[in-house]
Amino acid sequence: MQLSAKTSGVSASDSASGGRTFGAFSIITDELSQVRALMERESSDCNETVRGLVAQTQAGRGKMIRPGLVLLSGLSCGRLTEEHIRAAAIIEMIHNATLLHDDVIDESKSRRGVATVNHLRGNESAVLLGDFLLSRVIRLCATMDGVMMKAISTAAAQTCEGELRQIAQRGNWQLSESGYIEIIAQKTASLFDAACKIGAILTGAGERQVRGLTEYGQKTGIAFQITDDLLDLTGDEDKTGKPAGNDINDGKMTLAMIHYFNSAGEKEKAKALKGIKSRRSGFRRARTALAKKLAEHGSIDYARHRAEQFCREAINSLNVLKSTKAKDALIETAGFISNRTA
Amino acid sequence: MQLSAKTSGVSASDSASGGRTFGAFSIITDELSQVRALMERESSDCNETVRGLVAQTQAGRGKMIRPGLVLLSGLSCGRLTEEHIRAAAIIEMIHNATLLHDDVIDESKSRRGVATVNHLRGNESAVLLGDFLLSRVIRLCATMDGVMMKAISTAAAQTCEGELRQIAQRGNWQLSESGYIEIIAQKTASLFDAACKIGAILTGAGERQVRGLTEYGQKTGIAFQITDDLLDLTGDEDKTGKPAGNDINDGKMTLAMIHYFNSAGEKEKAKALKGIKSRRSGFRRARTALAKKLAEHGSIDYARHRAEQFCREAINSLNVLKSTKAKDALIETAGFISNRTA
Repeated sequence: MQLSAKTSGVSASDSASGGRTFGAFSIITDELSQVRALMERESSDCNETVRGLVAQTQAGRGKMIRPGLVLLSGLSCGRLTEEHIRAAAIIEMIHNATLLHDDVIDESKSRRGVATVNHLRGNESAVLLGDFLLSRVIRLCATMDGVMMKAISTAAAQTCEGELRQIAQRGNWQLSESGYIEIIAQKTASLFDAACKIGAILTGAGERQVRGLTEYGQKTGIAFQITDDLLDLTGDEDKTGKPAGNDINDGKMTLAMIHYFNSAGEKEKAKALKGIKSRRSGFRRARTALAKKLAEHGSIDYARHRAEQFCREAINSLNVLKSTKAKDALIETAGFISNRTA
Repeated sequence: MQLSAKTSGVSASDSASGGRTFGAFSIITDELSQVRALMERESSDCNETVRGLVAQTQAGRGKMIRPGLVLLSGLSCGRLTEEHIRAAAIIEMIHNATLLHDDVIDESKSRRGVATVNHLRGNESAVLLGDFLLSRVIRLCATMDGVMMKAISTAAAQTCEGELRQIAQRGNWQLSESGYIEIIAQKTASLFDAACKIGAILTGAGERQVRGLTEYGQKTGIAFQITDDLLDLTGDEDKTGKPAGNDINDGKMTLAMIHYFNSAGEKEKAKALKGIKSRRSGFRRARTALAKKLAEHGSIDYARHRAEQFCREAINSLNVLKSTKAKDALIETAGFISNRTA
């Protein structure tokens, strides 16, 4: 099965509230607007200084994939409730706090095509604003059931643990594919699988459905990160809205690089490593040359293929669900994730 | 009334678990050990990479003032419960996350006399470790009542809001005393008053007691920060365990400086400002000269006097409590706070 965003008709469109919504999310447009409104209410209930900063984060203007997964997972098992809206907002706010902190860590100047808070207002403000969002997460959690809170906090912890493991592996050009998958499963997929799991539990889904959706979340999360890492190597900065080539600069191994290093001869590998380490001409030029090498070795295709494979497995895990529009939308979302260009 | 740490017999001693405990906290030594053990359990339930980082934070080795306030406030109104231990751990973990992020913001190399995580392992690790601690806070909160969680999340949000307001006021050498007090009440005192309030509520204290203890927390919190800011100007780095002079370097107005600028003539003020802004000889030397000026103008004494005043008011607000060892310990703690040298 060839997964394709084009054939599945998935596209991005502007929603009424100014955020962008996937075509696959059209059946949850109203609920996503409620999620955005709640996020805005929660994060603007503060003094003017903080409100001004929040306005700069473009929070709620991202792809809203994680809240979308909470809602579609819930809808695929039954009816959506007020709690789904809150859970979706909580998960997106954790994600936004992570992005604020990631931008400080990566010294990023732009995200989603606009200047980052750290770039505009300094690292202090970006770190503290992320913390402020997390404090609002705690406040929103006060309205949730203990089981939900544990799922949410576990996912948040896993995200940090995964990122810290990745930092510890920085400069380890021998990282194996399984080591890489383990890291991104923690760093990225944990929030995806929590989104799906919580969405299902809140609808009172049965154990099999919860398990199936959790697996769907994990697999699409892994695929999402593989594609994200590919975009860092080969993506168009104008489309992704963020500078490329960060991973190699940071000594971070990603799937295409792992494949390349495994398939290139020792001599070529040594030469490539030397180029990466010296970076005499800056990585912008080196990235183009490296991307070419990766393409020649089939490494780009390999990573794309693996992402598609994870998405296919994700779709298979939805077999436990009966056929609904929400299930179709989840299938479409998986298709988009492995084919996205931004 | 002259508040004095010496006359009140408050001192710091090493507890069995390796942390330092105030003399005033001797009646809650066992409970503080339980708090430390819980903090350690919560923050070491993770992969090896993160555990290694946690070990470097010296978490639980600070003065443990906020957990002490939860426990003493509870004890002054009745019996301590398991929930007090959890609330105390939550509040100290929020504080520790804040410290990790503060050290990134301030580019601090040492804290509590040891190297900071950002200095040893980089900003990324320090930011993420702080986030990890906050995720564990959410997990612990799952075991608390909704009212407690709201109090905790409000305090955490206020801490961030206060810090962000302070950043927005950076370089404003006209900041008024009331503006300064408002900022530190949010930034520092909100966690103190939440500690006292929660401690009292968990014991089922009456409304008057809760109000009295909340006020005690707020006033001691303000005094704590005034003293902290004084130590940045005049303290002994070997005792405080962190470098001094940061505030002026960061353009941060503190109480002694506000008093000095209000009492010095325009000419002297202009000269001092010029010195601060140029900092040709580095601030280490300039700090000594400035501290001398502040002393001459009675500005150091003024700030110390105001801290003592807040502590006296704090003690007065304890009048609603009947006489107990815990109440005595709260009085002693207030005495220590306005006289501390580290």
